[in-house]
Amino acid sequence: MLTRLFSNLDWVRGYSRAAFGNDLIAALVVTIMLIPQGMAYAMLAGLPAQAGLYGAILPLLLYAALGTSRTLAVGPVAVVALMTAAAAGEVAGLGEPGYHLAALWIALLSGAIMLVMGVFRLGFIASFLSHPVISGFITAAGILIAASQLRHLLGNDTRGRTLPELIPSFFTNLGSIHLPTLVLGLAVLTFLFWSRKGLAPALRRTGLSAGVAGLLAKGALLVAVVASTLVVWALGLADRGVRVVGEIPRGLPEFGLPAFELGLLQLLLVPALMIAIVGYVESISIGQTLAAKRRQSLDPDRELIALGAANLGAGVSNAMPVTGGLSRSIVNFDAGAETPAAGALTALMIAAALIFLTPLLYFLPSATLAAIIVVAVASLLDFRALPRTFAYSRADAAAMAATIAVTLLIGVEEGLLAGVALSLVLFLYRTSRPHMAVLGQVAGTEHFRNIERHHVATDPTVFALRVDESLYFPNARALETRILQAVADNPDLKHVVLNCVAVNLIDASALESLEEINTRLRDGGVQFHLAEVKGPVMDRLKRTHFLDELTGRVFLTQFDALEALSPALTRDTLASTRGNSFIAPA
Amino acid sequence: MLTRLFSNLDWVRGYSRAAFGNDLIAALVVTIMLIPQGMAYAMLAGLPAQAGLYGAILPLLLYAALGTSRTLAVGPVAVVALMTAAAAGEVAGLGEPGYHLAALWIALLSGAIMLVMGVFRLGFIASFLSHPVISGFITAAGILIAASQLRHLLGNDTRGRTLPELIPSFFTNLGSIHLPTLVLGLAVLTFLFWSRKGLAPALRRTGLSAGVAGLLAKGALLVAVVASTLVVWALGLADRGVRVVGEIPRGLPEFGLPAFELGLLQLLLVPALMIAIVGYVESISIGQTLAAKRRQSLDPDRELIALGAANLGAGVSNAMPVTGGLSRSIVNFDAGAETPAAGALTALMIAAALIFLTPLLYFLPSATLAAIIVVAVASLLDFRALPRTFAYSRADAAAMAATIAVTLLIGVEEGLLAGVALSLVLFLYRTSRPHMAVLGQVAGTEHFRNIERHHVATDPTVFALRVDESLYFPNARALETRILQAVADNPDLKHVVLNCVAVNLIDASALESLEEINTRLRDGGVQFHLAEVKGPVMDRLKRTHFLDELTGRVFLTQFDALEALSPALTRDTLASTRGNSFIAPA
Repeated sequence: MLTRLFSNLDWVRGYSRAAFGNDLIAALVVTIMLIPQGMAYAMLAGLPAQAGLYGAILPLLLYAALGTSRTLAVGPVAVVALMTAAAAGEVAGLGEPGYHLAALWIALLSGAIMLVMGVFRLGFIASFLSHPVISGFITAAGILIAASQLRHLLGNDTRGRTLPELIPSFFTNLGSIHLPTLVLGLAVLTFLFWSRKGLAPALRRTGLSAGVAGLLAKGALLVAVVASTLVVWALGLADRGVRVVGEIPRGLPEFGLPAFELGLLQLLLVPALMIAIVGYVESISIGQTLAAKRRQSLDPDRELIALGAANLGAGVSNAMPVTGGLSRSIVNFDAGAETPAAGALTALMIAAALIFLTPLLYFLPSATLAAIIVVAVASLLDFRALPRTFAYSRADAAAMAATIAVTLLIGVEEGLLAGVALSLVLFLYRTSRPHMAVLGQVAGTEHFRNIERHHVATDPTVFALRVDESLYFPNARALETRILQAVADNPDLKHVVLNCVAVNLIDASALESLEEINTRLRDGGVQFHLAEVKGPVMDRLKRTHFLDELTGRVFLTQFDALEALSPALTRDTLASTRGNSFIAPA
Repeated sequence: MLTRLFSNLDWVRGYSRAAFGNDLIAALVVTIMLIPQGMAYAMLAGLPAQAGLYGAILPLLLYAALGTSRTLAVGPVAVVALMTAAAAGEVAGLGEPGYHLAALWIALLSGAIMLVMGVFRLGFIASFLSHPVISGFITAAGILIAASQLRHLLGNDTRGRTLPELIPSFFTNLGSIHLPTLVLGLAVLTFLFWSRKGLAPALRRTGLSAGVAGLLAKGALLVAVVASTLVVWALGLADRGVRVVGEIPRGLPEFGLPAFELGLLQLLLVPALMIAIVGYVESISIGQTLAAKRRQSLDPDRELIALGAANLGAGVSNAMPVTGGLSRSIVNFDAGAETPAAGALTALMIAAALIFLTPLLYFLPSATLAAIIVVAVASLLDFRALPRTFAYSRADAAAMAATIAVTLLIGVEEGLLAGVALSLVLFLYRTSRPHMAVLGQVAGTEHFRNIERHHVATDPTVFALRVDESLYFPNARALETRILQAVADNPDLKHVVLNCVAVNLIDASALESLEEINTRLRDGGVQFHLAEVKGPVMDRLKRTHFLDELTGRVFLTQFDALEALSPALTRDTLASTRGNSFIAPA
């Protein structure tokens, strides 16, 4: 078990000096991004800045030891930070001691949930989240995240967790905008947005090679941090009301289990489950994308275990919930990371920064962190996804629209739940109306086709129905209703033949429906037959009394059934009009 | 619209004196059952006895006008009464004024929910309830109902809504058993249980015809009610502690909307939804069974409208939630009811009883009503369903066991929700792992089969995968993982061919997965092809950019694909070993 658990550490044996060099460079680039991003996402989660940095030490080491992705960069990310803020805000006020405690327990609970899901191979639970729901949720979360940073960019007190709270707050606080903060924030924002596309070409124009220019461009965050910190320090802006990060405790985090409160855990269980699932889905998508570029693959269950361990690590080291993040993973990959050692080296560098650099971050303005957040989430927004999805599938678009609307108007947890619920209802709706075809014999052949699409011969005493789906509880009742309707509509009916060629499974609900159909047809003087039942389905039916009670027979083919039940029809149809009344499907 | 709504009243035109005679007899038999049953189920719901009788007037008239079943007997039923007690008990204490108010709002809300479901054709929502969940729920509810009547049969104060409450209460109250009540209750119980099987034969031995004896046997309830009432009155048992029904307000119910409280409605919404769904499922099952015996059929959506109207009627006439009940419907059918007029006549007879007979019911002992309830629910218990289901499908048995356990131990709403949730999770689990077959060419043919089951030829540069299910969100990720794994495992791979012969639908999630697969394969230098895509699926794909971005091609058949991607293989396989290396499926 232990060797299997750490089997992804195979790279250690063949680890070369060259690979170490590449990992070291990647780690350095990621660390430079991670210091401001970690602090920014901690601020977004409503936590002290160091929580974000602590979240980049122990969790990264654990993921490096257990994870199956070689390039995924784990740590605090925006969407999970927002969800943490929403859940912690339900149980404690911002800045109260219970607030950080709640965040730690969210990390521990979601870590434990991921671990359990991984060990028991329950990763399929993540498939409750359909793509349109995730996509809608991330866009809506991005909007809320950006809006939540307005107070840092404007230097006022614009607050709210949903648009109906944020919008009025924005207007009532318009009068108290702090001009130096606004100027600083806009400057950083403009620089960062420009740097995403413009910095690398500008550096190249100075004569640098494309590779070096690309790497240096990743340093835009560092430039913004250093420059805005220097400006605040030099002009004494902190004394003039520009909010700054302030004192960050020097050194490594303290380790230990946070205070235990059963009531708190009960309140946080559902949010932690949602954070675990969203975090996992986000992380595995990024990991798979990057792995595929090098023809590597991830093990979803072991990813759950690794992410679970990382979050448990976050919970015991005074940090915040973590997962694999998009932007830093791409940077890690592009910077040439070859092995999980890059993640471990990042953790060591963050630890070093906590020991040596924290005094330098005192004057880092909150507006800079807010600008970093806004730039990061801007790439998450995909406003064209809704019309694009609508053009392809209205049901999916409805689930997406509901997710966006409920997230923006009511809250992040509610939005996610609404999306999942609507997806399930729509899925069930689709599944509950399987395609059913009434069959007739194609003239001149032994083939049977849908009477609505083909010219076929039928016998008024025989009703032959093919269901193009497995029979299970969502569609069991539909089948019952359809057959009973046919019997009520056709007084001459003597036989019902259910063609099971497309049926891969009959669950207990459907079995009971078949028994009901059999009994009800018997009461109405109609025989019930099956045709073309697949081997495994038949094996299961044989374990029940159904076949003993079946009033009719089980035929190998539809033709066999008709030959037995309506010999005249099959003979005539086969002989008289061979091959000339077949028409193309409608 | 109005004519369509009442189109089931077609029977009125051809209504004959003979049919009226039959309906009248059926109505009389049903009324004799309904008076004690209505009072008993009102007691079970924790409501005054008249609520059950009121529930048999306006609701029956409304159902007779709108329903599509000719023989369904609507009114108070045991399971819905229990669910009403559970929900009303959450918002008010038994006997408090808010308690009956809550029951009325449950009727109104569940009626409105049914009406909306019927009008918008949302009846499929009932398919969330799988057969095993319903079956387990009804058995567990039956146990709780029987246990809840112990206090009336023992004449003490045994109380509780779940087994962990009822069992200790039973033992602590053992000392305060009221002997006359116990003797009376046991006598009625014994008589009723005996009468179910023994009364009709006993009557026939007195020389009566089988038909008359059968009809008279339905009068067992009446005998029990009259005899036990006379005993209590004659021996003055009411003064010696035997609890009786007491004063029932004489005359018809008062009509009007109950007092409106928004907070109350919010609390009752979820229970009302569950009661609506359980009531609908119970009613439609009975209705369809009876209709099929005469080769009639029901319209599920119009049944929802009719049951919704009946419950709205119950809510405005001081009654209790109603639905179609099993035992009275069977009696109605057996007694020869031919049209919905039987239901309307029942309502009139109940109204007459309320005007003229209530003083006679004063001394009717609660123990008799409790015995009637116990006998009625005994037929609901199906203890062999669990092992039977287990033998057929462990997943279904798990859902059933969870429903039973949670209902008995925690509560009826929780039990139903647990069953539904587990069914969905297990369903999703099954759906999230669709059967996938890697394909190879059968020697000597143009056919392609599962490489694990057949002797087939494959090309190491081509990976051909067939998914035996539609592609939608529960299995989208599984497909991604499977294909990326194959690419990671086979370094020689140049082409992936996805065979879509079994794919009836590609939803937005699966489309995005296909796009992801295409991009990731491209990054890994592998081409992605589709084969055997069905017409409607292809039409939808053409509305997207997917086909433009597809790195490979869309082939009409698997053979075409292999011929294009691996011409040497297809030719050699076709030629060299024609028809002799095909082996049977494993």
